[in-house]
Amino acid sequence: MDKVYQLIIIGGGPAGLSAGIYAARSRLDTLLIEKAGLGGNILNAEWVENYPGFPKGVSGAELGSLMAQQAEKYNLPTVFAEAEGIEVRDGEKLLKTSEGQYRAKAVIIAGGSEHSKLGVPGEEEFRGKGVSYCAMCDGAFFRDEAVAVIGGGNVALNDALFITRFVSKVIVIHRRDQLRATKVLQERALANPRMEFIWDTVLESITGDSQVRGLQLRNVKTGAKSNLPVSGVFIAVGLKPNTEYLKGLLALSEGGFILVDGQMETNVPGIFAAGDIRAGSIRQVIAAAGDGAIAAISAERFLSSS
Amino acid sequence: MDKVYQLIIIGGGPAGLSAGIYAARSRLDTLLIEKAGLGGNILNAEWVENYPGFPKGVSGAELGSLMAQQAEKYNLPTVFAEAEGIEVRDGEKLLKTSEGQYRAKAVIIAGGSEHSKLGVPGEEEFRGKGVSYCAMCDGAFFRDEAVAVIGGGNVALNDALFITRFVSKVIVIHRRDQLRATKVLQERALANPRMEFIWDTVLESITGDSQVRGLQLRNVKTGAKSNLPVSGVFIAVGLKPNTEYLKGLLALSEGGFILVDGQMETNVPGIFAAGDIRAGSIRQVIAAAGDGAIAAISAERFLSSS
Repeated sequence: MDKVYQLIIIGGGPAGLSAGIYAARSRLDTLLIEKAGLGGNILNAEWVENYPGFPKGVSGAELGSLMAQQAEKYNLPTVFAEAEGIEVRDGEKLLKTSEGQYRAKAVIIAGGSEHSKLGVPGEEEFRGKGVSYCAMCDGAFFRDEAVAVIGGGNVALNDALFITRFVSKVIVIHRRDQLRATKVLQERALANPRMEFIWDTVLESITGDSQVRGLQLRNVKTGAKSNLPVSGVFIAVGLKPNTEYLKGLLALSEGGFILVDGQMETNVPGIFAAGDIRAGSIRQVIAAAGDGAIAAISAERFLSSS
Repeated sequence: MDKVYQLIIIGGGPAGLSAGIYAARSRLDTLLIEKAGLGGNILNAEWVENYPGFPKGVSGAELGSLMAQQAEKYNLPTVFAEAEGIEVRDGEKLLKTSEGQYRAKAVIIAGGSEHSKLGVPGEEEFRGKGVSYCAMCDGAFFRDEAVAVIGGGNVALNDALFITRFVSKVIVIHRRDQLRATKVLQERALANPRMEFIWDTVLESITGDSQVRGLQLRNVKTGAKSNLPVSGVFIAVGLKPNTEYLKGLLALSEGGFILVDGQMETNVPGIFAAGDIRAGSIRQVIAAAGDGAIAAISAERFLSSS
């Protein structure tokens, strides 16, 4: 508790690890705090094809591991703890975590975001019993069964395409009449014989017994209701930033993302944000890693001028 | 000449290739224009240690090649030509190049920057005869001789450290009394027995016969002049953006860098900039690649909404 770090980085995904590589190479006395596993959300990405430098693609788990090894090579210390609050006292930052308190002169917040919930009846009750937010984790549990994917973005289609390896049929349920996902994914999805699409439709509730048995759907244009028998449902409707504990301290966007300038500075001097947790992020690994480098260089400049 | 591309990317360095990978994966009808070699300025980087995902480091040439392969995998067409001007007519962009004209609905400018000149007597005269801007290209020509490096930033120290492999002595001449380079580099440089430092000193002229023989120096604090006998001088004093041909079209910073917002949009709708050529860039490969992805996604949004 007595030690004051120069820099604490919250989050060990691509943004936090990139910031850590830069900070450690700059010989800043830095601590990285991660609540689960180094690599962050990319650990859930089966295959990453668009991170420049990997023409054959790379699994999310391997890319996360490579970045973690690189941070370790420059002796970046890591503790596993969950951030619970930040207080600023005379410029010093006091970070409260599940494993005690840490002090630092500067903080980079790179805590990412989590999957949004739909908030429909059955979603909580059947979580882990057919309701999933992670296709890669749970797809193989539904061998030769029919499952649904809710959403129309890149994550939803990537999830759906992945699950087709296991299941007999994937039904994508989307509230609009066209997908938001990038065209290459749309083409693959629309051409996949195991995939079906239900347009203009929302999920109203999830039903079952000891596990999911069906979905109550509603067409938003006609109002018609229907029941779809499935054994599982993957919910891929967006991300929620991990910023609950920062309310009142930092300026946040309407969606709860941290507002930053081009140098990743927040409204509080010495606090920076990087990656999916900041407002305006394109939610791509390469951009998160770029953010992390920018935040580390900004933190270094802040520390050397204060 | 008749064809109108959806997107033209100017520059095949990390920013342009990353933009190309994203644009090609999004099935945008894209053309990439590069004036020299795919990879851009990283082809001059002997070894890159801070690009996240490569814990052992990677040569600049290999990283450039990996990114180029990835763009090629998604069928990104490339032409070798130098951009000379852009005209906007009814929203369409007409790009004039050394190899003819191309038309596009959107343009991403990722042309990077070039090494700044000192503008001292002898600099032009002895270029290629002992004056160099590329340590990796020319370092081996000075085996067992003494050479100077001008500058105090990361590029200067990286250059100097690289050259110590070949030469008997590297003298770093810096106009201030401390280095701007990151600490890990400073430590390595200061500990290297083949490196010496001359502080608070500027180069006034370069002298020689058929090749460089010496440098006229001036101490900026005392005014004292001196002569330093060397066979070569590597000038590493900064970068100049390749934006001459954009004056009058785009809003530029005082240093000539392209002004962009957080989405890499310039002041002209449908023209984006990414990487070292934009104002506020940290001049790092990872950030340039991040910029490229952001610019491509912004271009895709621009095209689908126009």
